[in-house]
Amino acid sequence: MIERSVPVFGGQSRFIFIVLFLLLKNAAKVLRKDDFLTLIKKGRQILNKPLAKYLDHTLLKPEATETDVTRVIAEAKQYDFASVCINPYWVKLCHQQLVGTDVNTCTVIGFPLGATTTDSKVAESKQALADGADELDMVINIGELKGRHYDTVQADIKAVAEATHAGHGLLKVIIEAVLLTDDEKVIACQLAEKAGADYVKTSTGFASGGATVHDVELMRKTVGDHLGVKAAGGIHTKADALAMIEAGATRIGASASVAIVTAK
Amino acid sequence: MIERSVPVFGGQSRFIFIVLFLLLKNAAKVLRKDDFLTLIKKGRQILNKPLAKYLDHTLLKPEATETDVTRVIAEAKQYDFASVCINPYWVKLCHQQLVGTDVNTCTVIGFPLGATTTDSKVAESKQALADGADELDMVINIGELKGRHYDTVQADIKAVAEATHAGHGLLKVIIEAVLLTDDEKVIACQLAEKAGADYVKTSTGFASGGATVHDVELMRKTVGDHLGVKAAGGIHTKADALAMIEAGATRIGASASVAIVTAK
Repeated sequence: MIERSVPVFGGQSRFIFIVLFLLLKNAAKVLRKDDFLTLIKKGRQILNKPLAKYLDHTLLKPEATETDVTRVIAEAKQYDFASVCINPYWVKLCHQQLVGTDVNTCTVIGFPLGATTTDSKVAESKQALADGADELDMVINIGELKGRHYDTVQADIKAVAEATHAGHGLLKVIIEAVLLTDDEKVIACQLAEKAGADYVKTSTGFASGGATVHDVELMRKTVGDHLGVKAAGGIHTKADALAMIEAGATRIGASASVAIVTAK
Repeated sequence: MIERSVPVFGGQSRFIFIVLFLLLKNAAKVLRKDDFLTLIKKGRQILNKPLAKYLDHTLLKPEATETDVTRVIAEAKQYDFASVCINPYWVKLCHQQLVGTDVNTCTVIGFPLGATTTDSKVAESKQALADGADELDMVINIGELKGRHYDTVQADIKAVAEATHAGHGLLKVIIEAVLLTDDEKVIACQLAEKAGADYVKTSTGFASGGATVHDVELMRKTVGDHLGVKAAGGIHTKADALAMIEAGATRIGASASVAIVTAK
C-alpha cells in the first residue's frame, strides 16, 4: 500500500498537487465569492446545456424564399436548436411550423440599422409577438449613442423591452460592436441592462464585422451575471462557437449552425 | 459671300452635313413617334433641370449622429438638391430644418432588407409622413419575388403606395437589382407600376452592388415614360451621375452629391 501510494502523492505528482493547491489558494484571494458562484454556475451550464441549445439558427438574407425558410426550420427541429432567427415577414410561418417543439421563434426589430423611430420598433415588436415570436433581437439607435444622447437610447430600448415582456417575449439588444469604441460598448450594455433587456448581442451580421472574443469578454464583464450575452456575425465553425462560449457568450447566432453542431 | 460660304457648306462640312442627314433619315424610319416625343421631353428635362435637382442627398449610415444629419441638411439647402434622404428616426429633425425650402425630406421604409410585414411597412410610412416626409423609398419583399409570389409583392407595394399617396407623398420602390435576374428586375418594375408606385429604384446601397447603367436602361425600358427611375448605390462622381441620367434615370441617390455638383 505504501509503495503504491508513492507514485500518487510523491515525486512529480506531489509537486503538481502542491503547485495546484498554491494556485487555487492565490486565486481564492483574488476572486470574490460571487465569481466562484458564477464559475460554478457557468460550469454547470456548460455541462448541462448541449451546444445546439446555444444556437439561434439564423437566416436573415433579404432574398431568402419560403423554401429556404422552411428548410432552416426543419434543420432547427432536427438538431433542437435554441431558436430559428428569421426576418419579421416569416414569423407567422415559422411559429406555425415550430408549434409543439422546444425550438423558439426569434426575429429582428429595427434591423439592421436601428435608425427607425421608437414607435416603429414597438409596433414591429408587438406584431412579431402577436405573430408568434418568442424572442426579439432589436438594434439600438447607434447614431444617438454616438451623439451621447444616452437617455434617448435607453428609452428606445425600454419601450421595446416593455412591449416584449408584456407579450411574454425575451429581448436581446444588438449594440453593433464593430461601429463602437470600447467605451461606447460598455455604455450600450449598461443602458440595455438599465432598460430591462434580457441579453446584449454583439452584431447584426450586416455591418463590416461580427462577433469578436474581445467584445464578448468586455460585454460579459460589463453585464456580469445579470444578462445573457449573444455572439453573432462571422461564427462559422465549432471552434468559433466554443471560443465565444469560453469568452462568456450564452447564445450564438449563426447561419452555419448545422456545420457547428455536426463538426467532430 | 460666296467665298465665305464655301468653307461652311462645301468640302468636309458638306460631307458631315450629308452623313448627319442620312443618319437622321434612317433613325426616323426605326424610331416611333412616341420615341421622338420621349427624346424631346427628355432633352427638355435635361436642359431645364439642374443636376442638383436630380440628386437625393443621402445619409443612411446607422452611426450617423445629429451633427452629421444636420450637416447634410445644410448642404442640401446650399446646393438646392431634390431631397435629403435619411433614416426614419431623423425625419422630424430634417423636415423642421427644411421648412420653407424647395428641398424635400425623403426617408426609407422596410429598409434595407424589405423583409418586414406589410403592416409594419404601412405603419412606418404613415409615421414618416406624419413626421414630415415628402418622399418614401421602400424595399420590396425580395424573398417573395424570388419565390414567385407576385400577388404578395404587389399587394405589399400597393398598401404602402396607398398610405403614401393618402399622405400626399411620393413613393419610390427599391427592387435591389443586384439580387435579381434580369427577368425578375422586369417583373419587379411591372409590379411596382401596377401597384401605383411613382418611381422604381435600383438599390439600397447596402447590398453587394449598386446601380448599373444596364439596370437603369432595363428599368427605364420596362416602365417607359410612366414612372421615374432612381439610380442609387455606388454613384460617386459627376460622370457616374451623368451616365445614369443618360441611361434613363430621373433621380440619383448619392452621399457624394456635393462632389457630384461641384465637379468641373
